[in-house]
Amino acid sequence: MTNFFGDLAPLTFDPEGEGPCFRHYDPDEIVLGKRMEDHLRFAVAYWHSFAFEGGDPFGGRTFDRPWFGEDMEAARRKADVAFEMFDLLNVPFFCFHDADIRPEGASFTESLRNFEEIIDIFERKMETSKTRLLWGTANLFSNRRFMAGAATNPDPDVFAWSAATVKACMDATHRLKGANYVLWGGREGYETLLNTDMGREREHAGRFLCMVVDYAKKIGFEGSILIEPKPQEPTKHQYDYDVATIYGFLKDFGLENEVKVNIEQGHAILAGHSFEHELALARELGVLGSIDMNRNDYQSGWDTDQFPNNVPETALAYYEVLRAGGFTTGGTNFDARLRRQSLDPEDLIIGHAGAMDICARGFKAAAKMLEDEALEAPRRERYAGWDKPEAQAMLSSDLASISERVIAEGIDPQPRSGRQEYLEDIVNRYV
Amino acid sequence: MTNFFGDLAPLTFDPEGEGPCFRHYDPDEIVLGKRMEDHLRFAVAYWHSFAFEGGDPFGGRTFDRPWFGEDMEAARRKADVAFEMFDLLNVPFFCFHDADIRPEGASFTESLRNFEEIIDIFERKMETSKTRLLWGTANLFSNRRFMAGAATNPDPDVFAWSAATVKACMDATHRLKGANYVLWGGREGYETLLNTDMGREREHAGRFLCMVVDYAKKIGFEGSILIEPKPQEPTKHQYDYDVATIYGFLKDFGLENEVKVNIEQGHAILAGHSFEHELALARELGVLGSIDMNRNDYQSGWDTDQFPNNVPETALAYYEVLRAGGFTTGGTNFDARLRRQSLDPEDLIIGHAGAMDICARGFKAAAKMLEDEALEAPRRERYAGWDKPEAQAMLSSDLASISERVIAEGIDPQPRSGRQEYLEDIVNRYV
Amino acid sequence: MTNFFGDLAPLTFDPEGEGPCFRHYDPDEIVLGKRMEDHLRFAVAYWHSFAFEGGDPFGGRTFDRPWFGEDMEAARRKADVAFEMFDLLNVPFFCFHDADIRPEGASFTESLRNFEEIIDIFERKMETSKTRLLWGTANLFSNRRFMAGAATNPDPDVFAWSAATVKACMDATHRLKGANYVLWGGREGYETLLNTDMGREREHAGRFLCMVVDYAKKIGFEGSILIEPKPQEPTKHQYDYDVATIYGFLKDFGLENEVKVNIEQGHAILAGHSFEHELALARELGVLGSIDMNRNDYQSGWDTDQFPNNVPETALAYYEVLRAGGFTTGGTNFDARLRRQSLDPEDLIIGHAGAMDICARGFKAAAKMLEDEALEAPRRERYAGWDKPEAQAMLSSDLASISERVIAEGIDPQPRSGRQEYLEDIVNRYV
Amino acid sequence: MTNFFGDLAPLTFDPEGEGPCFRHYDPDEIVLGKRMEDHLRFAVAYWHSFAFEGGDPFGGRTFDRPWFGEDMEAARRKADVAFEMFDLLNVPFFCFHDADIRPEGASFTESLRNFEEIIDIFERKMETSKTRLLWGTANLFSNRRFMAGAATNPDPDVFAWSAATVKACMDATHRLKGANYVLWGGREGYETLLNTDMGREREHAGRFLCMVVDYAKKIGFEGSILIEPKPQEPTKHQYDYDVATIYGFLKDFGLENEVKVNIEQGHAILAGHSFEHELALARELGVLGSIDMNRNDYQSGWDTDQFPNNVPETALAYYEVLRAGGFTTGGTNFDARLRRQSLDPEDLIIGHAGAMDICARGFKAAAKMLEDEALEAPRRERYAGWDKPEAQAMLSSDLASISERVIAEGIDPQPRSGRQEYLEDIVNRYV
Repeated sequence: MTNFFGDLAPLTFDPEGEGPCFRHYDPDEIVLGKRMEDHLRFAVAYWHSFAFEGGDPFGGRTFDRPWFGEDMEAARRKADVAFEMFDLLNVPFFCFHDADIRPEGASFTESLRNFEEIIDIFERKMETSKTRLLWGTANLFSNRRFMAGAATNPDPDVFAWSAATVKACMDATHRLKGANYVLWGGREGYETLLNTDMGREREHAGRFLCMVVDYAKKIGFEGSILIEPKPQEPTKHQYDYDVATIYGFLKDFGLENEVKVNIEQGHAILAGHSFEHELALARELGVLGSIDMNRNDYQSGWDTDQFPNNVPETALAYYEVLRAGGFTTGGTNFDARLRRQSLDPEDLIIGHAGAMDICARGFKAAAKMLEDEALEAPRRERYAGWDKPEAQAMLSSDLASISERVIAEGIDPQPRSGRQEYLEDIVNRYV
Repeated sequence: MTNFFGDLAPLTFDPEGEGPCFRHYDPDEIVLGKRMEDHLRFAVAYWHSFAFEGGDPFGGRTFDRPWFGEDMEAARRKADVAFEMFDLLNVPFFCFHDADIRPEGASFTESLRNFEEIIDIFERKMETSKTRLLWGTANLFSNRRFMAGAATNPDPDVFAWSAATVKACMDATHRLKGANYVLWGGREGYETLLNTDMGREREHAGRFLCMVVDYAKKIGFEGSILIEPKPQEPTKHQYDYDVATIYGFLKDFGLENEVKVNIEQGHAILAGHSFEHELALARELGVLGSIDMNRNDYQSGWDTDQFPNNVPETALAYYEVLRAGGFTTGGTNFDARLRRQSLDPEDLIIGHAGAMDICARGFKAAAKMLEDEALEAPRRERYAGWDKPEAQAMLSSDLASISERVIAEGIDPQPRSGRQEYLEDIVNRYV
Repeated sequence: MTNFFGDLAPLTFDPEGEGPCFRHYDPDEIVLGKRMEDHLRFAVAYWHSFAFEGGDPFGGRTFDRPWFGEDMEAARRKADVAFEMFDLLNVPFFCFHDADIRPEGASFTESLRNFEEIIDIFERKMETSKTRLLWGTANLFSNRRFMAGAATNPDPDVFAWSAATVKACMDATHRLKGANYVLWGGREGYETLLNTDMGREREHAGRFLCMVVDYAKKIGFEGSILIEPKPQEPTKHQYDYDVATIYGFLKDFGLENEVKVNIEQGHAILAGHSFEHELALARELGVLGSIDMNRNDYQSGWDTDQFPNNVPETALAYYEVLRAGGFTTGGTNFDARLRRQSLDPEDLIIGHAGAMDICARGFKAAAKMLEDEALEAPRRERYAGWDKPEAQAMLSSDLASISERVIAEGIDPQPRSGRQEYLEDIVNRYV
Repeated sequence: MTNFFGDLAPLTFDPEGEGPCFRHYDPDEIVLGKRMEDHLRFAVAYWHSFAFEGGDPFGGRTFDRPWFGEDMEAARRKADVAFEMFDLLNVPFFCFHDADIRPEGASFTESLRNFEEIIDIFERKMETSKTRLLWGTANLFSNRRFMAGAATNPDPDVFAWSAATVKACMDATHRLKGANYVLWGGREGYETLLNTDMGREREHAGRFLCMVVDYAKKIGFEGSILIEPKPQEPTKHQYDYDVATIYGFLKDFGLENEVKVNIEQGHAILAGHSFEHELALARELGVLGSIDMNRNDYQSGWDTDQFPNNVPETALAYYEVLRAGGFTTGGTNFDARLRRQSLDPEDLIIGHAGAMDICARGFKAAAKMLEDEALEAPRRERYAGWDKPEAQAMLSSDLASISERVIAEGIDPQPRSGRQEYLEDIVNRYV
């Protein structure tokens, strides 16, 4: 034991508790016929919790962690604390990038060796921990070699390096029985159109993704392949802008049945969408995979990655997930980091525990709304006209004959109330 | 003659002119082997110039036009002034919605009759005017019957009404030999997800568009069918969010070779993109059709539809158009309206003339940059590594063999300057 | 009785009610030693509820109200329905502009006569209704005469007209025993700097406000004079941008003790601030007057004026109000309008009732947090260092002697956790 | 000579030059009776040019500079390169923070010693260089001790440290004959209101500023004291939000005649204002001091600090500066940094040279517009009504008598065109 968290005991469900505990999240509570833990599938993000140093564009490291450092000793200490925290939080999952867990080596080979050594450690730890791997991913954006992109880099050697890195990360994810593999195109985009060959870069990105899908099949990886949309930051324009953009891209390369999306609240916001919009759209397009749960300050134009803290918002998000049938391989990854002034080990625990409670509250409200058909009954009623055979027939008709009918029958449609305030009020009865 | 513009003479090219004239736009100047008029294909928007009354969300009509009124007499007077203005401005094109040109009738049939009577008038006027029709379109958003959408309305009767309206507008566009037909989904979107069946609405929108394409073929309309993206306003979320979204939608319904996009600067901005981004993306996806040239205040989150006035910006926009080979059926429609305090007839003329000059300046700069390969030479050079056979081979390779090569060859990519400031400086030598 | 609301009975507090009722707002519940009605001081906004026709920039009237029309008959019918709704909702207050309640006349004198006739009617109705006037105000932005501003218009005649209008509205407010008089500078700002003399306009605005303050004193009006900040819309830049801007303006004209602010949630958002920021700042500057409670879509850059519906947000807002000691003359005006698709009379009732419940929930949470010192104890503790005499002494010291002390004592400050996640979690225990 | 820039010769004015040179900026050209160098007063920012390593929130250092390192040797090498670049660019000024130029020491005293040693070096270099100091400033935001603010920190020891640091920076600025001293409140603001005592922090900030002003007087520093507004980033809310906010703050502490503002384009944009708005407002309030010239991407919600590259925009900015009478102690500091992919020494030169040309083009256009009264004549004409004695008399009148006059004279103001498009067109004749 590292003793980083002192004598803190594992958190338990205790609705009236004063110290760190879960006041709303009871993993064993049955909701819609399933344990809440199995619905929500919470995951801790290795990068924010253990690799983030508290820096921002105007200042450097504020945190003071015993595992900071660029050597294997530090990486092993970090892994020890990580698994201790997973146990304290009783989370069923975690997620990582290669660069979160191992020091960068002097060459690809050395980095790979470092990486595999830590994967060995993870594997051993996971034998005795309940925590499994929700997803693994490759960091193809931090090192300066990726400054102009990974798969979309003007230099083919960077494409090669990226491919080799993804191979290694997929191998590791497969070995650790990860439920998904995620790609976030950190620098797949451009800073300025003036120096960018957008068509070529898009083609390379598509080809890269095809290889990823092929490789997953080849090694027998049965998890989902997920892409994470984000509209901008770090680049001026990210190619994986939002769900709709990714969908068009997947269609273009024939991958719409092979790849799904991992949707982050903050990225949805930055793209000008609500989180629930992105979830609903992905559901309708058949590509909803997993979520990165966090929150973005609505008024800061950058990625703030804060822990979720608004129940009405999480309720609407989980409502869309539930309408899609809930998670299969996906889950709720907290892509959220402490504010840089939150220096204490306890802050790490409280940040996560508070977020898990907020999610649990939202989730239970969503489940009840769905059970009661509180929104679904009025929705069905609103579109009831379309259930009539003549309405359906019209959809396979043509403009000329519809026009004739409008004229002949003197059709004159009358508006009906959309009842938005009523429906918002209904939601508020549940949250 | 209505005398609305007094004794103003038709505007001519006069680089040193003091009064209303073109200081930069010479329709007959040959650029890249073609007359500038034939490149730019300017169009006046009937709605902003003749139907807009100067209202905004906090106040009503400020303009005082002799043709305002909801009767056919007023509509005829409006048409007279419109064609007088086309002549004064010497524009080769105009664009219209049905609702811009005719008074609403008490029934579909009466509205249609009004509409066709004005189309007759247009047809006669076009016999003697040089001005042709760039595109026609249907207003499926102003009347309260469309408050919950047109093709995506929960009421099938509104779908029917919309289909009949589009038929009428396509018929008219075809009769007037319009070069394109445009669809802007003004209220195809939602105000709140709570009452919306997004999957159903998307399906209806797709089906509607298929009918439009079929009808165009049926009547022998050879112009382009165009969709105009906009992310929000009037709705919370518009389904035709941006170029990438529309592309995925077209692919889903097998329409990517049938339908193109009409891109508006202001709508691009509201979607979080630069205008040139949307143009470049449409070009790469093979769906660039036409442009709505205007400008949006970058800091107002609504559609300000101002006349363009920044040469460096128009230069970058036309540069992307030229890289696509220039307009074929498309053109430059001024989807721009006078500020509501610009009350005078002369303001209408000056707004357009100034915009035409700004476009001409930007266009000429863009053409010169392209001719000189000022941007294309460095761009090619930046991606030169990909022209090598081994790089191309890698694109049809697989992760495992690439990984082997990275390790075996000790590949270690070295960053090269992206030279953004240099390229921006180059552009500034041309504008 | 107009029967507009059918046989709807006055709403009552009924936590388990199914139909229109208050599930959380009990006017008689005692919180912090006072009835909730007397804390919250809810007001209905005449304009949104009775004058708004459902239009938006892309479409006109959607509502179909029996009182729409530009004659006195219609205005009287509107007043009848308004007071019926006040009674149904059991609201203690309402607010109005002159233009909401009377038809525009052909001259100033005729408009004034219309206005005063309706004020007579209001006065009679208020004899038997419990509903009082929270504030009156003048609409100096809708008519085209105000297109370039009211007090800041380039035409002195518009300044004169505006002054005469404000006089009339203050007279009416005084007669109806209004608790406050509000000024919102709808078009006090500019569309373009190119035609604007900002210094002159600011000077005129200041002089105008001085006259308003003087006139209030002269007629013995003892309510508060309030300015409502808004950053933009309808103008490109509004002079009353936000609380901080107004404060500087008031200081410049020596009015900081005469005038307070009426803060709207939506306007705060548009200025890039949280609502609670504006409230807290106004409190610290001693100018917090009243609130316009609504919500703005965070992602629409225009004023959406929706009914509040997020309890965690209203809790934080009322928390700042309570820290200021609660409302004195001010109150909670619902500057919120139905969505344009919410056509039914019932929507008007549900919109308000839902909002009153949301406010009550937030308010009670805020009161409990304050009572428990849940936030105030940690806040005090965080700044405890400043309570020491040597820290206070330093504030009246000088750079040189502080520098000496830093060097002599080897001062080396050590960061302490800001505990943001912990505090957010605390708030979530209350909402 | 460090040879960092190779054999690059000092840049000269050469309108037809191909390599690095000034195509528009001729320091000796006389505009409005003064050398252009003396108008524009260009300054290089030490931090962006020499301390920025190319990092962003998703990646670290991309630049590879021979002077990177945390020791005095590196700091001296950095100073050598800096002055070589000042000479190559022929800039009359530079600006710096303490932290840009010296390594952090283990204590305040050691940092101070490092700082003073570099100041000695600067002093010697400035004996032979033409480049003078536009302003010095203190970095009170990067080190973790400032994570919760400097003057507004909850810990009085941080206030003390900050005061001592500012003293040292003012001493150095005075010694180097700096024309101004600037304060940017990097972390003077808050991350969350929940843990913030806004009133107390504001009071401390005011008291701190008073000490700064007193100390400047005490040491005989005759330059201007400037505050730089910014609305957010790194904090959620910065106290020095914009010009209007700072003005109210200065008034509150009686400092409006002692302190001016240093306005940055990018910060203006982030606050929702145009750059020219902030400049015009500062002018009208009598607090315009100096400018940080850069540009912010309009669509990235963070501070992008790019080199200016749009002539129409710089023209409008300098126009407001010229209307204020031009710079006195202030100047044009390039608070702009290379994009992180611009790795080459030449990029540093080209970024600055391009920016200087853009500024020169804008400046010359602005000067000509002013000379021609192209905007001032129509502006005067628009407000001419206010020059009449009766209009002026009204400003010292009262509501009641104005109201009487409106009624008696039947005043009925008629709108006049604001001519925005005409004025925009006029500007475009100059740029």
